[in-house]
Amino acid sequence: MQALPGFRDFLPADCAVRNYIFAQWRDVSRRYGFVEWDGPVLEPTDLYKKKSGEEIIGQLFNFTDKGGREVAMRPELTPTLARVVAAHEREFKKPLKWFSIPQCFRYEKQQRGRLREHFQLNCDLIGDSSEDADAEMIALLVDLLRSFGFTPDEVRVYVSHRGAWGDYLRNHGNSLSSGEMQEFLTVVDKIERLDETVADERLKRLGTSLQLVRQFIQRPEQYFDAFRGLTDKLKARGLAQFVTLRPQIVRGLAYYTGFVFEAFDRPGKLRAIAGGGRYDNLVAQLSEGAVSLPALGFAMGDVVLGELIRETPSARAQMEAAVEREQQLDVYIVIAKEERRADALAQVQALRDRRYRVDYPLTAARVGKQFQTAEHLQARFAVLFGDEWPQVKLKNMTTGEQESVQVETLAARLQVLF
Amino acid sequence: MQALPGFRDFLPADCAVRNYIFAQWRDVSRRYGFVEWDGPVLEPTDLYKKKSGEEIIGQLFNFTDKGGREVAMRPELTPTLARVVAAHEREFKKPLKWFSIPQCFRYEKQQRGRLREHFQLNCDLIGDSSEDADAEMIALLVDLLRSFGFTPDEVRVYVSHRGAWGDYLRNHGNSLSSGEMQEFLTVVDKIERLDETVADERLKRLGTSLQLVRQFIQRPEQYFDAFRGLTDKLKARGLAQFVTLRPQIVRGLAYYTGFVFEAFDRPGKLRAIAGGGRYDNLVAQLSEGAVSLPALGFAMGDVVLGELIRETPSARAQMEAAVEREQQLDVYIVIAKEERRADALAQVQALRDRRYRVDYPLTAARVGKQFQTAEHLQARFAVLFGDEWPQVKLKNMTTGEQESVQVETLAARLQVLF
Repeated sequence: MQALPGFRDFLPADCAVRNYIFAQWRDVSRRYGFVEWDGPVLEPTDLYKKKSGEEIIGQLFNFTDKGGREVAMRPELTPTLARVVAAHEREFKKPLKWFSIPQCFRYEKQQRGRLREHFQLNCDLIGDSSEDADAEMIALLVDLLRSFGFTPDEVRVYVSHRGAWGDYLRNHGNSLSSGEMQEFLTVVDKIERLDETVADERLKRLGTSLQLVRQFIQRPEQYFDAFRGLTDKLKARGLAQFVTLRPQIVRGLAYYTGFVFEAFDRPGKLRAIAGGGRYDNLVAQLSEGAVSLPALGFAMGDVVLGELIRETPSARAQMEAAVEREQQLDVYIVIAKEERRADALAQVQALRDRRYRVDYPLTAARVGKQFQTAEHLQARFAVLFGDEWPQVKLKNMTTGEQESVQVETLAARLQVLF
Repeated sequence: MQALPGFRDFLPADCAVRNYIFAQWRDVSRRYGFVEWDGPVLEPTDLYKKKSGEEIIGQLFNFTDKGGREVAMRPELTPTLARVVAAHEREFKKPLKWFSIPQCFRYEKQQRGRLREHFQLNCDLIGDSSEDADAEMIALLVDLLRSFGFTPDEVRVYVSHRGAWGDYLRNHGNSLSSGEMQEFLTVVDKIERLDETVADERLKRLGTSLQLVRQFIQRPEQYFDAFRGLTDKLKARGLAQFVTLRPQIVRGLAYYTGFVFEAFDRPGKLRAIAGGGRYDNLVAQLSEGAVSLPALGFAMGDVVLGELIRETPSARAQMEAAVEREQQLDVYIVIAKEERRADALAQVQALRDRRYRVDYPLTAARVGKQFQTAEHLQARFAVLFGDEWPQVKLKNMTTGEQESVQVETLAARLQVLF
């Protein structure tokens, strides 16, 4: 029997990679003053329909539970966030700076960088509409990428602003309905993939043209005051070289209201590493007007990020060192004489009580084989319990150096060596 | 809209409790040389039927996915473990010492200590049939309980052995079929809850009696050599006072083959905190004979454990300190003069780069209000950017002490203070 298609088994080495990614996510988010929260894996299907419409159902792992409820495994965390914030926002001072690491599920075709489940970091800042909040979130995204060892040569955050396209249209004397605006943004979003004639036709129907849109994409600054303010704030932090204006990054979703951004590998070979933006009306919409709070956020998935780490030598080396550390043992106890087993167990316990990672042979084995096991488990030290009792032999497994110590002083001696 | 019944929202304070429990679980498991792994939340329903029979279906969150597959949200991790071990065991030296922290799902009636989802620590030791392995696992369970601050007055691990009941029956000249043995263990498992007459009748049909069984429960040592060996090994570690023989702890499940054990609060007010045992035939059974490996393991859920922590003053205080640490800020930057915002941002970044947790006001606010925010966020220090520039004022929020420092020396000064 096998795992379901699109689902992963995490063998210890894979789980250590996952833990490394989660550790960076948590560490950097907390440095930014974000606190962790989480919601249920299973939610009423209606929660997702309310945000994304009936079409979402085709992509859900949804079913009727034994109590007759229509339920779905979460495809994303934002609707849960809106539900929880609407219920509890009075208990917290604004802004809320919340992060979470949900596993999310979508029934869709498997492709490179896209499975049927993945973990994602969600960071959301709720209750502040300032441009400093936008800069704070983009800086957080940059620092998340930096924490994995990526440089501006390897990754880039591309930023745009929904309002800039509004300005552009107004400057060309256009005034679009909200439906037309959504159609316009859809074309812009796909502009590099659409057939030129088709794109031009669709844009002409909206009162503009491919040529004009391309001009704006190449020289957007004149329409785009907000970006200058943002750039200044990122410059003050020394992070501006990670961020590039790219007006065509409008993101498909209808609910964004301000800055939008996506992180990519520089060569652009992979899918987006992360994406997000400002969604000032979504909390009100999802809570049916119960609570209205400005907000912005982004999500970063573990699958594409993991691929990019593996393909980037320095990032990969940093990850491998962390993975090795997670799986390493501190001390392996070698029992050379079975009469010493009880004494060895007492030391196993004493060292574990001091938080060392300690292992030992469960059954009698030759000394040579026990040292092989110590090596295999990457133990930093081996301690041999044998003829010299009450002295034990302490061996540094990296240098090969050995010394004899009285068993009562073993813990103290190790404390010096670690 | 609300969360589904039996599912939890984890607000930041709840999530910090969850993180505290997970951190202890990971830390202690690693000290014992266990490495983390994980499997999918969703598996083929057949995987669970194969272990538990058709009856399990009534308790599953199961459905047909969009590809026509019968799937279920995992009710437990052991079937996945058997699947993964059968597929990969050749890649690893034995014994495997593996732990995992899956979220598991059961559609059942909500009660105290029982939700429709919970997290559980699973620890399994695979490929060793020695009694030292049993002692290792029971010691791990004890140390997990100790790590939360519990003493032998507050918790206890009760141990029994399936073989001891076989010995008991043989000593009384009984020889039961495996079906009768299962019926016998079911009665023993419930002996404290069953009506005496009913229990006696059922036992008499199996060739014994309530009186004889009770005698054994009260004085099991004579039938039970294995327990003496186990006790000696726990004594060598100094953990014996946490462990008590209790023959009626046989656990309901058919597949246990040796030692079985459960952890409870001493007054016995709550459900079991953890339970497990040796299951030497299960890997072979679940892999349809592909791989046969002796094994033992246990699981510890987060719900009952969390209740007991909250009810036990010293354990609760230890948890609350950890929760506070997780949510605390290191430094709050107070911007007294808006002209200093860019300079403040540069320091925010410099301190975050040094891994401090730092926050600051996104929009202009009165100095007094900013200090209130610093207090509310439990910042250890506040740094004021204002008139004294290029000096800044550093305030210890615990002691109230203040000093002026040159901005270039701020990071160095903080390093001394932390």
